[in-house]
Amino acid sequence: MTERPQHRYGKALLTVLDPDGQPLADREVIAEQRSHAFAFGNIGFEFMTVADGAGPPGHAGLWLDVFNTATLPFYWADFETQEGRPDTERLHRTAQWFAGHGCRVKGHPLVWHTLAPGWLRERPIDEIEATVRARIRREVSGLAGLIDSWDVINEVVIMPVFRNEPHPNAITRLARARGRIATVRLAFEEARAAGPGATLLLNDFDMSTAYECLIEGVLEAGIRVDALGLQSHMHQGYWGEERTRETLDRFARYGLPIHMTETTLVSGDPMPPEIDDLNDFQVPSWPSTPDGEQRQADEIVRHYRTLLAHPSVDAVTYWGLSDADAWLGAPAGLVRADGTPKPAYDALRSLIKGEWWLPATVRRTDEAGRLEVSGFLGDYQLSHAGRTAGFTIAAPGTATATLRLG
Amino acid sequence: MTERPQHRYGKALLTVLDPDGQPLADREVIAEQRSHAFAFGNIGFEFMTVADGAGPPGHAGLWLDVFNTATLPFYWADFETQEGRPDTERLHRTAQWFAGHGCRVKGHPLVWHTLAPGWLRERPIDEIEATVRARIRREVSGLAGLIDSWDVINEVVIMPVFRNEPHPNAITRLARARGRIATVRLAFEEARAAGPGATLLLNDFDMSTAYECLIEGVLEAGIRVDALGLQSHMHQGYWGEERTRETLDRFARYGLPIHMTETTLVSGDPMPPEIDDLNDFQVPSWPSTPDGEQRQADEIVRHYRTLLAHPSVDAVTYWGLSDADAWLGAPAGLVRADGTPKPAYDALRSLIKGEWWLPATVRRTDEAGRLEVSGFLGDYQLSHAGRTAGFTIAAPGTATATLRLG
Repeated sequence: MTERPQHRYGKALLTVLDPDGQPLADREVIAEQRSHAFAFGNIGFEFMTVADGAGPPGHAGLWLDVFNTATLPFYWADFETQEGRPDTERLHRTAQWFAGHGCRVKGHPLVWHTLAPGWLRERPIDEIEATVRARIRREVSGLAGLIDSWDVINEVVIMPVFRNEPHPNAITRLARARGRIATVRLAFEEARAAGPGATLLLNDFDMSTAYECLIEGVLEAGIRVDALGLQSHMHQGYWGEERTRETLDRFARYGLPIHMTETTLVSGDPMPPEIDDLNDFQVPSWPSTPDGEQRQADEIVRHYRTLLAHPSVDAVTYWGLSDADAWLGAPAGLVRADGTPKPAYDALRSLIKGEWWLPATVRRTDEAGRLEVSGFLGDYQLSHAGRTAGFTIAAPGTATATLRLG
Repeated sequence: MTERPQHRYGKALLTVLDPDGQPLADREVIAEQRSHAFAFGNIGFEFMTVADGAGPPGHAGLWLDVFNTATLPFYWADFETQEGRPDTERLHRTAQWFAGHGCRVKGHPLVWHTLAPGWLRERPIDEIEATVRARIRREVSGLAGLIDSWDVINEVVIMPVFRNEPHPNAITRLARARGRIATVRLAFEEARAAGPGATLLLNDFDMSTAYECLIEGVLEAGIRVDALGLQSHMHQGYWGEERTRETLDRFARYGLPIHMTETTLVSGDPMPPEIDDLNDFQVPSWPSTPDGEQRQADEIVRHYRTLLAHPSVDAVTYWGLSDADAWLGAPAGLVRADGTPKPAYDALRSLIKGEWWLPATVRRTDEAGRLEVSGFLGDYQLSHAGRTAGFTIAAPGTATATLRLG
């Protein structure tokens, strides 16, 4: 399992010129990677404090050192507690903060039955549809230029038959009345119209053939989906390599990029396997344990290696850096509630910023100013005597470029 | 649970005329039901002996007394053991026997990954598709006029990911290469073209949301399906009323008739719940027990009541009358291997030919020759002094008709 994911690497054959345009022959230069093309994501929910002027959380440095893509929360019931008063401005500021730190930003989710607003619950179906459509247009256009990737619709497989609530929510009513595919269609129609350049995802936790059948129906219906989102909240235990590969292979059949949108590995006792809806598991305390932390570190490395080895995977989002305020109170973070990194943090960092990263490296150009740089796909910088030039390794294989130091 | 399924009953306001066209006033007549509109089906696999001249099996009388619709086997590997030598003639003769005894006949299945022919296994996908298309045309047109209902494609949810075999069969390869919906489309295209008046079913054992998602995709793709086939092999125990109703409600949402195509209740110990693929359960002997037979009788009545109470259900096929040669060796029959009826046979007969049936009944016309007959939807006969006339109660509500005794 330590073989290199070759399809993640490329080579640049550079000809380096000095500021006058002459080949920089036989000189020492420093080559270093600046960013990953691959989306190493995490949620940035706890960074909403920056929108309120309270500044980023204490673990912001740890976050930015490893991750390059932030998922921000658009849970409708929280985002628009009072109809007509959306939280757009705060989300905008938080997204700007991430963008200012060189991160891509993703919105999650536009349509979901969970956390559908209570004020919409009893409305007629036509009005629900119109309100959902307007909400999608508002969020996608309101964040345009900052958020370029959206979980357009979440958990459609269960959506019309969701029963874990006393009265059906508005989104379940809509999906039941219109059908799954019609609901997906209207959501993608609005998101596509409002954000024609955005990456639009279908996202689900159901990894069974049900999701395959849904995807096939959506694609046969002519709905353009940019990437398939697969959740993997492994609160009940690590899937292991075989199941992970089998799952990826099944969903790769549609020829679409796969985003692992919600990835969780706990550093405590796993949730019992008989729990069906993870939300039903309520414990007063779910501690991180030393053994659990070692296991989590081992598993996160194995899991990310498996994911990056698969050519269809374009993005992996881990679900929460810190144990503080983690979903279900689970010790799912890579950082303990006290702010100290767990072994899994260091292990993941040693991949993303170690094995899969080119640190500042002294190299020497040849007599024609040429230099070969190999590395993980991403942006790079060359520097010499205080002057720099950037280049990109965009694809596997070898590309040539001429750089003039500026 | 003993309330009458009102939507199964209708009323005929008859005016009875004598052979001269005069009202048959104030006379005793006998009204009796001749057949059910509802399809009370069973498999007729063991009646293939009639095609070989050996005559029907010993339990043929028990079969014909309760059931009116026979499912005949078109398992491709058995039907065409040698390419180009289909078993059409034998199936034709067996279907004719049933038709001659007033039964409707159904074919099962045209496309299925299990029992796909070995000779097709290694062919290129295009050739598999062409061969599948030709097979569907051949069977549907070859049995036209005798078989008017087909399980066109069986178990599509699992079809492309079916793994319970060392080498993938041709149908799994086709479904994997083309996708589920495209495979459904080609099968229905051919069946519809060859049998424009036939009732064409999609059939599956998967009662999860996966089948819902498949159905939605198929319907969104514009494929016309005449009825949804739901299997219910309850070898692991009776579903119970609540689960049955919940399942029916979920699949009734598509506005299509539901056929319960494969219904099984065992009169022995149920199969352990941990068995996933029922075919994996192999026991040297699976006896029918006195307790099991009582339970089966109770359950079959509860189950048929629940099914007929649901307005979407148009057909119920029980999966095998006799324990002799039953699938998996299960005591799933309503008749023991020695030919004696189990309590479940009598219990089911007491519904179909008892509670839901109008036996020959003496009635009296009024002074204008009028008479009101209520009963289960189906065909009826009126007789007086050796003369008869037929009428049909075709729909719920009240219909008027004038009958001339002939």
